[in-house]
Amino acid sequence: MKGSSRPNLHLALVHYPVTNKNGDVIASAVTNLDLHDIARAARTYGVKSFYVVTPLEDQITLVNQLVSYWISGAGAVYNPKRRQALELIRIKNDLEAVISDISALPGSTGVPRTVVTSAATKRAVVSFSGLRRMLHDGFPYLLVFGTAWGLAETLIASADFALAPIQGATLYNHLSVRSAAAIILDRLLRPRDME
Amino acid sequence: MKGSSRPNLHLALVHYPVTNKNGDVIASAVTNLDLHDIARAARTYGVKSFYVVTPLEDQITLVNQLVSYWISGAGAVYNPKRRQALELIRIKNDLEAVISDISALPGSTGVPRTVVTSAATKRAVVSFSGLRRMLHDGFPYLLVFGTAWGLAETLIASADFALAPIQGATLYNHLSVRSAAAIILDRLLRPRDME
Repeated sequence: MKGSSRPNLHLALVHYPVTNKNGDVIASAVTNLDLHDIARAARTYGVKSFYVVTPLEDQITLVNQLVSYWISGAGAVYNPKRRQALELIRIKNDLEAVISDISALPGSTGVPRTVVTSAATKRAVVSFSGLRRMLHDGFPYLLVFGTAWGLAETLIASADFALAPIQGATLYNHLSVRSAAAIILDRLLRPRDME
Repeated sequence: MKGSSRPNLHLALVHYPVTNKNGDVIASAVTNLDLHDIARAARTYGVKSFYVVTPLEDQITLVNQLVSYWISGAGAVYNPKRRQALELIRIKNDLEAVISDISALPGSTGVPRTVVTSAATKRAVVSFSGLRRMLHDGFPYLLVFGTAWGLAETLIASADFALAPIQGATLYNHLSVRSAAAIILDRLLRPRDME
């Protein structure tokens, strides 16, 4: 199967543990547009599922309400295209629960390899072209994004791989997680003939 | 200079004339996160200016307040990186005013060539690699994005060029304008060795 399988890629957007401006570990609030934008990009690039990770009960309720509105409520009638994107969303308490969920999916080929994203990591990184090739190796992959000021160091350290930071055309490197997710999916999954 | 100049690229985010779900021409409301996300992406990729186009007085006031907060208000102290992005923002009533403004900039090399973006255009299009090369021809370029359901047909028809729609890995093609702008800037302006 090596080098020939179609990508089996899942996303996770983590709200805990992430850091704040001072580097403290916090739980961030869910941002409505993160869910819409990343779900739409995930659907566009054939991502299998989009996990929203938060242990906070009120945030879980909020995400459930939002997703229900667009999947089976008035939103589904108003904009069916939005339903096709938001139905990729699953809610989990932590990354361990996400990994278990992917491992137990029908037709699963094993435990997903985790890949953290960061604007400035101290770990050795895998390049975009390297990960693009790896995605065809038959294994499931889980690409992990942080909210607020980024993923906590413990979570970065425990992942199987860290993806290279996005480099733009300047030294400025402060994209929103919505923009970063869009760019990363395009670099990893766009058709090869699309420059 | 042909083939050697650095890109002289400007962005415009149009709130009128755009279309609604039924194809009617409307003026859309300004979305706070559009301004933040697209300004940050523009700054990351070395875009020269980011024009917010709306003729509505209350919307112009709103954008001015938002930008002032981050450029010279409490926001500038709280997060200087955000200031560096939002100071790219200019507000204009219509696209003609944007074109005049760019033409009159110090060191201007002429009237900008306008390039409209669309998820599904009927016009002949320029490819991403084609536009990427053109950006080094010494002319200023203005890349135009629509809000709501996209730019009005009259505006698409009057532009110098139309950029090819973003193709993901599926037939689904409903990215947010924030995601689309990020992907387009990455395809056009990222360093060539960054796959």
